[in-house]
Amino acid sequence: MALPNSVATLIAALNKLPGVGPRSAERIALHLVQCEAAAVKQLAETILDAREKIRSCEICGALTEQSPCPICADARRDPALVCVVEHAVDVLSIEKSGAFRGRFHVLGGKISPLDGVEPEDLRIAELEKRLAREPVREIILALSTDVEGDATSYYLAKRLARNGLTISRIAHGLPAGSGLEFADELTLSRALEGRRELH
Amino acid sequence: MALPNSVATLIAALNKLPGVGPRSAERIALHLVQCEAAAVKQLAETILDAREKIRSCEICGALTEQSPCPICADARRDPALVCVVEHAVDVLSIEKSGAFRGRFHVLGGKISPLDGVEPEDLRIAELEKRLAREPVREIILALSTDVEGDATSYYLAKRLARNGLTISRIAHGLPAGSGLEFADELTLSRALEGRRELH
Repeated sequence: MALPNSVATLIAALNKLPGVGPRSAERIALHLVQCEAAAVKQLAETILDAREKIRSCEICGALTEQSPCPICADARRDPALVCVVEHAVDVLSIEKSGAFRGRFHVLGGKISPLDGVEPEDLRIAELEKRLAREPVREIILALSTDVEGDATSYYLAKRLARNGLTISRIAHGLPAGSGLEFADELTLSRALEGRRELH
Repeated sequence: MALPNSVATLIAALNKLPGVGPRSAERIALHLVQCEAAAVKQLAETILDAREKIRSCEICGALTEQSPCPICADARRDPALVCVVEHAVDVLSIEKSGAFRGRFHVLGGKISPLDGVEPEDLRIAELEKRLAREPVREIILALSTDVEGDATSYYLAKRLARNGLTISRIAHGLPAGSGLEFADELTLSRALEGRRELH
């Protein structure tokens, strides 16, 4: 006997989620079809609700329910300090470390010609507009430590260079070739403290 | 900054799924809120659809979209052989091993007075009705190998004993203290072959 169709379809769908292998997709699917119908309905609604409410902040690009996001709207956050990250989820990683009291800017990726990602596909022009409008004194680049992250950092250091603006990069405390999402709080915190100015 | 409320709620909900820890719940949640809205909607619908379509087979209690299930309805399956399992998902584990061509009966658990599970909470009376109606010659008990599984097996061997009926138990090829859901196909296949009659 094969699995009932609707369960096989559910397993395939769950298997596409990050970190969910075929075995754990099966466990979750079998759990769900045997759950209280009301609990399953609520899970589905929670998923839809989150997806519907979450948008990008019009200033920094972070995930938020209101735009501007709570960080951009918080007058106590240092407007002189902007941390540039690749993805919206990276903001959450850095916030968890508690080591940063400035603001953010989400690029939306890193320059990667092989994948067809050019500078104009990233939110760099938006960052330049912020530099003209906001009293930014330091930009901290917190991109991946892989080749594209390095290249993007140097590209940004060159393109954003102007009088009175320091451009630094968080220390290579991150394991090489890895992204921000896998780093623990302590590593991120140390990487922020040890940032070095780019020349 | 804390996570947006709707995302925190989603992480908490995902964290309740089997095998999904806080870290992987967060990864899945952040993935979902950044997915195409249409893809997320489809996932939610797939979950609801599976839960809605899946029911228990009126004969054996297995998970199925039609009742009686394909196994009970299949005239090629040996009606003389009934394999008794604790949970509906155990049927799928045994079917995957390909080592069994008889039919099933799902108990719905095992006797466990400490958890308030008494024999009358299980589908034992239904099994007795099947014995009166169907030409069953052997019952194979495929319960967990823990204390409650042992106790339930001996209880069933005593209660179901009648002339012309063999009651056996699958071999203890399963690791002690573990349930069917964690066993691989080969282990299950060998456990079925090595079953011994209970006296």
